[in-house]
Amino acid sequence: MVKQSAKNRTVFFISDRTGITAEALGGSLLSQFEGVDFNKIHLSFIDTLDKANAAAVKVNSASIKTGEPALVFSTQIDAEYRDILSKSNCIFFDFFDTFISKMERSLDLKSSHTAGQSHGVNHNDNYSDRISSINFALGSDDGLGSKSYENADLILVGVSRSGKTPSCLFMALQYGINAANYPLIEQDLDNTQLPESLQQHKHKLFGLTINPIRLQKIRDERRSNSSYASLKQCQSEVKRAEDLYHSNNIPFIDTTQTSIEEISAKIINKLSLR
Amino acid sequence: MVKQSAKNRTVFFISDRTGITAEALGGSLLSQFEGVDFNKIHLSFIDTLDKANAAAVKVNSASIKTGEPALVFSTQIDAEYRDILSKSNCIFFDFFDTFISKMERSLDLKSSHTAGQSHGVNHNDNYSDRISSINFALGSDDGLGSKSYENADLILVGVSRSGKTPSCLFMALQYGINAANYPLIEQDLDNTQLPESLQQHKHKLFGLTINPIRLQKIRDERRSNSSYASLKQCQSEVKRAEDLYHSNNIPFIDTTQTSIEEISAKIINKLSLR
Repeated sequence: MVKQSAKNRTVFFISDRTGITAEALGGSLLSQFEGVDFNKIHLSFIDTLDKANAAAVKVNSASIKTGEPALVFSTQIDAEYRDILSKSNCIFFDFFDTFISKMERSLDLKSSHTAGQSHGVNHNDNYSDRISSINFALGSDDGLGSKSYENADLILVGVSRSGKTPSCLFMALQYGINAANYPLIEQDLDNTQLPESLQQHKHKLFGLTINPIRLQKIRDERRSNSSYASLKQCQSEVKRAEDLYHSNNIPFIDTTQTSIEEISAKIINKLSLR
Repeated sequence: MVKQSAKNRTVFFISDRTGITAEALGGSLLSQFEGVDFNKIHLSFIDTLDKANAAAVKVNSASIKTGEPALVFSTQIDAEYRDILSKSNCIFFDFFDTFISKMERSLDLKSSHTAGQSHGVNHNDNYSDRISSINFALGSDDGLGSKSYENADLILVGVSRSGKTPSCLFMALQYGINAANYPLIEQDLDNTQLPESLQQHKHKLFGLTINPIRLQKIRDERRSNSSYASLKQCQSEVKRAEDLYHSNNIPFIDTTQTSIEEISAKIINKLSLR
């Protein structure tokens, strides 16, 4: 990366619908530029002429205020409203117009050009799977539902607070994957063998590990100064969990510097879940 | 939309990282084209020359097999690997190259051009908020944590199985919003007044409602043939919940045909949470 001094820049995410796609797209691009302090503004449901004009006014004001044209990431579909936005004082990143005409040509089809098909209940082919997977993750949380292991796509294993639950929920929400969750407790960690309820599901297991110092910090926020949160306890649990993974050939990942997005993608990739 | 006969087309989401952005972007574009049966293939972590070549082989095979060039949605950053992919037999949608050079010019900066800054723990400015909000949502789930209402950004209210928990979790995961959850039970519904624990947090309340027939179906999957799942019970609860929202001026939304993405975006918009 080229080093540079800090700058300020206003960024708008503008959509006629929820703006989730504009945000995912723009956020990913922004992450490529360090050293800039981006002031992010979300304008969702810009679906009338009045709202489009009002949005353009906000963009213009921001550009005047910072002395640099604002960046606008748009998934606006309506050509008239898009035009109003793109002619405002900004650098306009037109997500739909850039790609949609190319798609129309390559598919030899007209696009629906109808807003709101992206995140609807009916158009999202795995929506009900996703909701049902959330319920699955909640129902099997913290080993309460070992009966559900039969229906699990995978079972995350790890010591308390190593990141199992957020990872399970993310995979459910994003992909409709049924991820169960088994917390390793003292009696599991005293063995080199897998807990009995897991043995027949070995191919579904994936381990999580974490830096003991980080674990200590997380646990201390929850139960301050407890033996549960002591560094010694954390070190011992993490060491024994990793030993268990090694002796049983369970793939595992360190969550210390890894986001739930990356944890999920790596697990899905490793277990060939999609 | 222009009606057309069904077609088959293979679509690849290719990334040197998790592929989440490629998928969000491409998925949103694909949703604009009905009547096409898209066979979706995810190739994540394409971060070596060998993997890029192997990916290109897969793309070529798919194009030959279907007789039409595959669509490739790429967030590949490395120019060499990207080149290998774009020269394969496909329609190449180059997410990074299309926008990143424009951003470099407008920011007068070089991009980091380093893979993996998008979803990391350190580069995602609200990552720890998101994780802490997931724990918040879980801790306050189903009214168990009324003490937590003080720290809530919003409190979702609704009858059992109206969609509160998935919505709370989505807002936590996606936005780092602390969303609590209050289930309306019989004794709440027999009143026109708000439950006592909610009264001082009225400005944080948002109601969910749902079509009683749909609710009956959802509840029946959970507790088949129970009075809880009877249509009469569902109709009565939904009616009284809506009455409660009206008499207390609580904004509410019908979740029957609305995805959690849209529910969340509408609530955030209405309560000006961002």
